[in-house]
Amino acid sequence: MKIFTAPLAHLIDALKRLPGIGPKSAQRIAFFLLRADGEYVQTLLHAIREARDSVRLCERCNNYTDREICEICADKRRDSTTICVVEKPFDIAPIEKTGQYRGLYHVLHGVLSPIDGVGPEDLRIKNLLPRLGENQVIEVIVATNPDVEGEATAIYLAKLLKPLEIKVSRIALGLPVGSDLEFIDEVTIIRALQGRTPL
Amino acid sequence: MKIFTAPLAHLIDALKRLPGIGPKSAQRIAFFLLRADGEYVQTLLHAIREARDSVRLCERCNNYTDREICEICADKRRDSTTICVVEKPFDIAPIEKTGQYRGLYHVLHGVLSPIDGVGPEDLRIKNLLPRLGENQVIEVIVATNPDVEGEATAIYLAKLLKPLEIKVSRIALGLPVGSDLEFIDEVTIIRALQGRTPL
Repeated sequence: MKIFTAPLAHLIDALKRLPGIGPKSAQRIAFFLLRADGEYVQTLLHAIREARDSVRLCERCNNYTDREICEICADKRRDSTTICVVEKPFDIAPIEKTGQYRGLYHVLHGVLSPIDGVGPEDLRIKNLLPRLGENQVIEVIVATNPDVEGEATAIYLAKLLKPLEIKVSRIALGLPVGSDLEFIDEVTIIRALQGRTPL
Repeated sequence: MKIFTAPLAHLIDALKRLPGIGPKSAQRIAFFLLRADGEYVQTLLHAIREARDSVRLCERCNNYTDREICEICADKRRDSTTICVVEKPFDIAPIEKTGQYRGLYHVLHGVLSPIDGVGPEDLRIKNLLPRLGENQVIEVIVATNPDVEGEATAIYLAKLLKPLEIKVSRIALGLPVGSDLEFIDEVTIIRALQGRTPL
């Protein structure tokens, strides 16, 4: 026999597909959603639709934004001669939180991974090159994650940018190997930025 | 400066209000929802609405159902002379999974908790009493959780049903199967000793 009534089973199934949500968490969230006040549920549903409808990628740096150009790229006070390259939009937040970086960003939305069939053409590198000339960029800091794919991507970028005579540096591997930039504390990130070395 | 674009920040805020979801999980789920295929997101939104619209409480036992009477109460093969009382609908699943219980259930949707201001009138006890006579119930098994509130609720029910001359029992409190006596807390050991059965 089915233990849960069909609509509840469907809800639990859908929730289980969210990252980090196992059967128990899905059940707990389903239970919460059933009993939550209508206003909150409307807020949640609206937020999901709104984010999907209005969030797009900044035309310059590929960060998430609801405009053509993201707030960071549009901020005239930022140092446009330095670009920090990261794997994904959520890697920007921990760097911003340090308050130590005043340059711009470029989000690749992935890393090179031959095993998964991800090549350079699958990353958002194309719109990086025009930025370098336009902004008279002096340095590109590669802040991809300190794992095999992140390293390979860093080396690829260094080779790609070498002919342009732009300084390409790599954040220091003060980061524990195998970790994820998204989850690193601020102090470690500051040290990693300071300890960057030429590639 | 705001680190996330407004629609994304709203989504993360809404997700953080789900039980067991901290800031990092909310961010991870938001990221996933932004990139997920449209079909899945539609399935999720529909499942939430559908569950909220169609799931209600069984008129007899207060379990979740999408009909007037839940599948368990409607099942003629179940033993209607035994009722197992649980705190919440999700407590039914683990008992059903044992395959050893063939009686019916009654869901209280809470437990007595004077500190939180929860009294008997806040629990769904009212529709338990008519069931006892109608079904010629022989035994009520109280399977509320083995904590202060669950115990208090069990004692309350025992007193309430005593005049009706119905057998009221409590699921055994004792050592979990496969555990090691060395690591069991004192209160559990006391309850296990008190509840000892002849060999």
